[in-house]
Amino acid sequence: MNKQELVNIIKEKKSFLCIGLDSDQEKIPQHLLKFDDPVFEFNKQIIDATHDICVAYKPNLAFYESRGLRGWESFEKSIKYLHKFKDSIFSIADAKRGDIGNTSKQYAKAFLDPEFPGLDFDALTVAPYMGEDSVASFLAYKNKWVILLALTSNKGAFDFQFLESLPDNENLYQKVIKKSLDWGNEGNMMYVVGATKAEMLTEIRKIIPNHFLLIPGVGAQGGSLEEVAKYGLNENCGLLVNSSRGIIFASDKIDFAEKAREKAMELKEQMQEILERKNA
Amino acid sequence: MNKQELVNIIKEKKSFLCIGLDSDQEKIPQHLLKFDDPVFEFNKQIIDATHDICVAYKPNLAFYESRGLRGWESFEKSIKYLHKFKDSIFSIADAKRGDIGNTSKQYAKAFLDPEFPGLDFDALTVAPYMGEDSVASFLAYKNKWVILLALTSNKGAFDFQFLESLPDNENLYQKVIKKSLDWGNEGNMMYVVGATKAEMLTEIRKIIPNHFLLIPGVGAQGGSLEEVAKYGLNENCGLLVNSSRGIIFASDKIDFAEKAREKAMELKEQMQEILERKNA
Repeated sequence: MNKQELVNIIKEKKSFLCIGLDSDQEKIPQHLLKFDDPVFEFNKQIIDATHDICVAYKPNLAFYESRGLRGWESFEKSIKYLHKFKDSIFSIADAKRGDIGNTSKQYAKAFLDPEFPGLDFDALTVAPYMGEDSVASFLAYKNKWVILLALTSNKGAFDFQFLESLPDNENLYQKVIKKSLDWGNEGNMMYVVGATKAEMLTEIRKIIPNHFLLIPGVGAQGGSLEEVAKYGLNENCGLLVNSSRGIIFASDKIDFAEKAREKAMELKEQMQEILERKNA
Repeated sequence: MNKQELVNIIKEKKSFLCIGLDSDQEKIPQHLLKFDDPVFEFNKQIIDATHDICVAYKPNLAFYESRGLRGWESFEKSIKYLHKFKDSIFSIADAKRGDIGNTSKQYAKAFLDPEFPGLDFDALTVAPYMGEDSVASFLAYKNKWVILLALTSNKGAFDFQFLESLPDNENLYQKVIKKSLDWGNEGNMMYVVGATKAEMLTEIRKIIPNHFLLIPGVGAQGGSLEEVAKYGLNENCGLLVNSSRGIIFASDKIDFAEKAREKAMELKEQMQEILERKNA
């Protein structure tokens, strides 16, 4: 999906919601365990109940790999089901990969290649520590995106991401963003910026006014949508705001998909108001 | 495997060789394609031919994920086969994972848990960018190891890892090592230091004289074993030196396993000489 297409579906749906499919089998409703593939059934029902009010889904690989081969089966089936809605959904593999160039190419094939193995995600989250060749390999696919970790939502973000470097006292996360501007552009790179650090968005928007940002940490992790929009919104929206547990685990009963839709709708309505206010 | 056991197998085998199972299906000998699972067959024959002269194997996940579900099958079968030699082989999942604490726990389960899904690796490579909670979750398993990226062997290493930070002008990779000393210890943490940067080992050994280091980049990437040993060896050896392509793809003919053994033996004999010189 290219940038204009993404902007268009945000405008049409009046939403910039991304739903995190962190579908831990131990947390899904127990009545689903009777299905052959409970996690796939869970994801399918969540997708069916919410695809018209969100613009993106983001399965986090950890929750699938932790069940080994069965987990990868659930993962592949879920993404293939999700592609039923390919024209109106931006798909993100939250895998935080990154390796030497030769190896990153293999990860790119794994997640982005439309042909084989065919997961055909629109985007992949990538860790920046190993630098250019670890990131650039993902940019070879047309209309595919790298979402680079810049400022994450967790406590550990303070260990290294705020280190001030010589000669200009910039923080590491700022260096990561600036340096990566040499590797990609507004049409193939986004950045992860945690909602728990919304006030930093002002500084980040000075460096990258037009790029899309993926914002995790709204909801369970405590970030505020209003704050994020206040500092992060740009002319083309420029935000994908993710919520995972707050939506998908809103209920552990038979009504889980309906309750997930309700929670997603609450966020979508706030987003619609924010977008309308911006354009008023 | 605990540290003493690792030191013991190094002494017994007179080797600190790690073999990288970067088993790209497009590069394995063509005659193997007749097997149900060519990559597993390849790994099995490589393991059978080399397990007595190396102390560790390190499959890189990218080369398996790039074949989707079939790749994960090859991966699981290979590691389960490798565990036949569990008492004399240290196993490393080269996955470069790392996510917020809650999510890293799932990755830890995926690769380190002895019970389910049962991959039961001794160690996992981890990226440091997200800080403490992204790393500490892996340290909950007894006798399991985090191998933290410090100074990698690729060109992109120069983008961020050498940034000098305030207030003490230390490089980022030095900060990563020092900070992580609060999270783990010599018995559950190692560090990746690329062989292409052997001269940096002197500085690194000042910070962590006793930790094990995993050294990739010998062979295809141009690093020298003698240089690495000169600056990195410690009282307990303290090194695992990895070679991947140079060993496993030494021949693409029917004799590939035999040729792999020859290449591994060349390195093993250099290592034996280095160890004997050290103890002379």
